[in-house]
Amino acid sequence: MNPTPIDFYFDFISLYGYFASLRIEALAARHGRAVNWHGMLLGVAVMKTMGLKPLLETPLKSDYVIHDCARYARRHGLELGRKLTDPVMDPRPAARAFCWVKRHHAGTEGAFARAVYDRYWRLGRDLADAAEIAAVAETTPALGIDAHALRAGLDSDEARSDLREAVTRSLERGVFGSPFILVDGEPFWGSDRLDLVDEWLERGGW
Amino acid sequence: MNPTPIDFYFDFISLYGYFASLRIEALAARHGRAVNWHGMLLGVAVMKTMGLKPLLETPLKSDYVIHDCARYARRHGLELGRKLTDPVMDPRPAARAFCWVKRHHAGTEGAFARAVYDRYWRLGRDLADAAEIAAVAETTPALGIDAHALRAGLDSDEARSDLREAVTRSLERGVFGSPFILVDGEPFWGSDRLDLVDEWLERGGW
Repeated sequence: MNPTPIDFYFDFISLYGYFASLRIEALAARHGRAVNWHGMLLGVAVMKTMGLKPLLETPLKSDYVIHDCARYARRHGLELGRKLTDPVMDPRPAARAFCWVKRHHAGTEGAFARAVYDRYWRLGRDLADAAEIAAVAETTPALGIDAHALRAGLDSDEARSDLREAVTRSLERGVFGSPFILVDGEPFWGSDRLDLVDEWLERGGW
Repeated sequence: MNPTPIDFYFDFISLYGYFASLRIEALAARHGRAVNWHGMLLGVAVMKTMGLKPLLETPLKSDYVIHDCARYARRHGLELGRKLTDPVMDPRPAARAFCWVKRHHAGTEGAFARAVYDRYWRLGRDLADAAEIAAVAETTPALGIDAHALRAGLDSDEARSDLREAVTRSLERGVFGSPFILVDGEPFWGSDRLDLVDEWLERGGW
């Protein structure tokens, strides 16, 4: 194994992030790499820092993205329990839960993130609800996470502080989208760049 | 040949459009398709219609795009005579010249567009200057375009009207970026989607 993991940034509300989350571990493993999962918040990066409006409130692009995501899902045989046009959840409770798992169950945060993503996008549950997040621990016992501890943890000052710090650090590293991947510091934005990440790892850059 | 050409939309100020312009003809030809080249204006689509700021004035994304374009140029062995951070030309004279060529030298507009792109991005000339656009006709005699007629044509009411109509029509078709490709109406945005266009043509969609 190459000791330097790939940095994978995501927001749970991002469907493109979900798409990439399904492939990043296998991609990294093909090159002997681990994945370091990092939460980020599109609301802070895109709206506050970049001064842009949400994708689905952007004329022309919104129609394209809806079409593009459906095409991607068909190509990869994915069933979605949620439409892009459904109300977007507040991603902060789930992002804080991820921070709590990363601190208190280090090593399982990637699997936890994938389970959360699955529950939100494939099953269509609203993870702004702390009970729904805690249910991830119950329905995925292999994670070894206590649901009550998770539910308390996601509301803790510690998790709030960890999330603020993670978001600040992501912006400092130039991360502005989901998914966003850093390979030894080299930035790749978007699920449509996974093949390029693959090539970069294969060739060792260029 | 499949009688339906691929629609290829571009703005001369778009470096990603230039990148794609170098590959679209060969890609289409592999599938027995011709290419119908269409001018569009990012200033109208992105700034006026979508209400976004220019890419290079968008925090975080601007740094990424500069990095990404340099990486693409290295990967494809391209030399650029212009930096993304150089002042952007007024694209309208060149876009009107393209409209004039499309109307008066139908069939050569793709080659003309590639020659303009070459002069702007590889040679780094400012094509807001009508004399620089006319020089494209002189330095590319195979086009069979008279430089004086081109220079007069790009300032004509006819070309102005053609460009306005082309831009309006592009927006009606949902085109908001450069490059933007329609395959039998199926939309693909971005030079990083050329491989997907290739697959779409190969499989006949999905």
